[in-house]
Amino acid sequence: MNSREHIDGFGTVDGQLAVGGMPLDRLAARVGSTPFFAYDRALLDARIDALRAALPDRLELSFAMKANPMPAIVHHLATRVDRIDVASALEMQTALDSTIRADRVSFAGPGKVAAEIRQAVAAGIIVEVESTTEIRRVIAAGDDLGITPTIAVRVNPDFAVKGSGMRMGGGAQQFGIDAEDVPAVLRQYAGDVDILGFHVFAGSQNLNAGILTEAQTKTVDLVSALADHLPYDVRYVNLGGGFGIPYTAKDRPLDLEAVGSGLHGLVDGPLRERFPHASPVIELGRYIVGECGIYVTRVVDRKISRGKTFLVVDGGMHHQLAASGNFGQAIRRNYPLAVGNRVDAADEGGVNVVGCLCTPLDLLGDDVELPPADIDDLIVIFQAGAYGLTASPTAFLGHPAPAEVLV
Amino acid sequence: MNSREHIDGFGTVDGQLAVGGMPLDRLAARVGSTPFFAYDRALLDARIDALRAALPDRLELSFAMKANPMPAIVHHLATRVDRIDVASALEMQTALDSTIRADRVSFAGPGKVAAEIRQAVAAGIIVEVESTTEIRRVIAAGDDLGITPTIAVRVNPDFAVKGSGMRMGGGAQQFGIDAEDVPAVLRQYAGDVDILGFHVFAGSQNLNAGILTEAQTKTVDLVSALADHLPYDVRYVNLGGGFGIPYTAKDRPLDLEAVGSGLHGLVDGPLRERFPHASPVIELGRYIVGECGIYVTRVVDRKISRGKTFLVVDGGMHHQLAASGNFGQAIRRNYPLAVGNRVDAADEGGVNVVGCLCTPLDLLGDDVELPPADIDDLIVIFQAGAYGLTASPTAFLGHPAPAEVLV
Repeated sequence: MNSREHIDGFGTVDGQLAVGGMPLDRLAARVGSTPFFAYDRALLDARIDALRAALPDRLELSFAMKANPMPAIVHHLATRVDRIDVASALEMQTALDSTIRADRVSFAGPGKVAAEIRQAVAAGIIVEVESTTEIRRVIAAGDDLGITPTIAVRVNPDFAVKGSGMRMGGGAQQFGIDAEDVPAVLRQYAGDVDILGFHVFAGSQNLNAGILTEAQTKTVDLVSALADHLPYDVRYVNLGGGFGIPYTAKDRPLDLEAVGSGLHGLVDGPLRERFPHASPVIELGRYIVGECGIYVTRVVDRKISRGKTFLVVDGGMHHQLAASGNFGQAIRRNYPLAVGNRVDAADEGGVNVVGCLCTPLDLLGDDVELPPADIDDLIVIFQAGAYGLTASPTAFLGHPAPAEVLV
Repeated sequence: MNSREHIDGFGTVDGQLAVGGMPLDRLAARVGSTPFFAYDRALLDARIDALRAALPDRLELSFAMKANPMPAIVHHLATRVDRIDVASALEMQTALDSTIRADRVSFAGPGKVAAEIRQAVAAGIIVEVESTTEIRRVIAAGDDLGITPTIAVRVNPDFAVKGSGMRMGGGAQQFGIDAEDVPAVLRQYAGDVDILGFHVFAGSQNLNAGILTEAQTKTVDLVSALADHLPYDVRYVNLGGGFGIPYTAKDRPLDLEAVGSGLHGLVDGPLRERFPHASPVIELGRYIVGECGIYVTRVVDRKISRGKTFLVVDGGMHHQLAASGNFGQAIRRNYPLAVGNRVDAADEGGVNVVGCLCTPLDLLGDDVELPPADIDDLIVIFQAGAYGLTASPTAFLGHPAPAEVLV
């Protein structure tokens, strides 16, 4: 996707990018300082609507808060999704502060310490256990608190999903219990703790509908086989997520209709037949929030060095690390950029957009076509709604923290 | 360098790694929680001593605080170095809170906003200007405050240093003013502001003494030529730094004697002749603090997945991003690791050390040879004293912030 498509997604007012219908220079004045992150509430709702329209009614939608734990976003989504997945005690507290019911909150991730697990058991949320160590910690916490904990077993599948941005299943993994070991684990612990069901997460940031459908199909087969070893009904089948969003010009958006079609076949077919008492769950973070957010910076210097134009902005990799190509990317590619207060002007030729940090890593746009921009103009980086601020080294070089607003 | 060499650098007590002479399990008890960063005061002093012994007496040593802005470290070093370089208003405040004199503090970095520059001018520190925009902001702040500001011109050299971890000079750059433009800038602004001299920083994390000496020699030539265009004496010649430290097993330490030998030739030769009123400065961050620090985590789970052993620790890439290979590295290589409470035991074979984050990026040791370790053991990552905590996404997934201690 190119920058024009991203601009059109937000819309424009008087030649400015709009967020929540407000022109960007007015929003910047409202925020009072740059840089800042802005999330568009209507785009968030539109994304949920699109998911609901494409996916089967019976399929529950879980928001993976790790993608964006801003409380305003969590509170907004708590009324629009069915479940929230958390990855730490702090994320759990944010979820519990919202209107979501505790038994609709799940807690996944390797390396949960005993104290976190005790908090989760006390809260009555679903602990997605990644190992037998964690099961024993859950049981100990339940005994201590006089509560029967609810868990789901995270399974490391015996298949891998090709073509994901990040592979998180198959082979040797720190995530989950190896599929072949799960039957024995179920037999050993099913009487000590309430095992609601299973979670299989095979990969992340996938833009290929066919691969996602294949993974979901294999997941249903795997979970169906494992369920034979559970002495009671399965009530929770978390199929994972992994729906990607387009970050660079070469990326095409995920074909949501195709993914939905595959899920209709699974949810209304084998999943309904095999698990009549379980609502299947799809867990999405990036796909829900990633495209609704922008990172807004202000140009503080415009320099020509040996024929190359540099726009130096007041933000940088300390707030939006992934856009600099330094967060898990093997190859750096530009994220979509715009001059947010001048979106309708013609491009002036390739310029470099750099952050204010004193390191060459702080490159936000390499030879990018933009309208003419100068000091005080607003440079926008799109696709900043997920794994943005919290996935960045905010203390690096000691610059002030950016604001975050939901508009 | 291998892990054994790093262990020996800190020393051991009763089979445990020692920090400041204290065995690691006792230090962990003193800190009260894991994970944490620990910096060894004696190693810090030893590094300063080694630099003073190898470098010419006339060469001033500046600490680039961006490498580690922990106040205790800054206060400790303020009595041992000649200057401190800062990269933001917050770093400037930390420096000014120490015993260093304001006129021994320099402020470099592109994208300095007018408010930061006004603070720097009010403080009376040296502003290392990166552009004519910044010069005009300095002059405006001086006019406003009734102060004659002191600046140095950061020069983007007309040469590049090969073999640096990060190149920051030569070609088109956001850093500094292109060398060929500097004469006109000096003529235009020398009457409006006190231009003390020059700063040339060609690259970072360099382990090759020959390349560093070549860059320093070219820097002296360049600065000598530029000084002809300044209508008064040069009083500040910052030769940059860029001394690297060995991060992976294949890295060999920098030959400090060789670098020192080259600098003796320059400082006692052309620099003294050409700039009798200027003390030359070398600016180092990573080289001063990088090797004195460790990141200490505790094992929270030990798992076998399909024949592979995983040690899951309570820290991870959210505190020490570079060790996961996700901070500017093209190829991921293991940082040196140890079982800090069992350093003398024999290795048990390759294990994976992973952090507690729910992402496959959170890999701290890939197939690394370690003594047998289990839950509650302490896993240490060396070379964590520079660009560690502040260069990491601490809010990612909402885990608690680690402690930092200077022992």
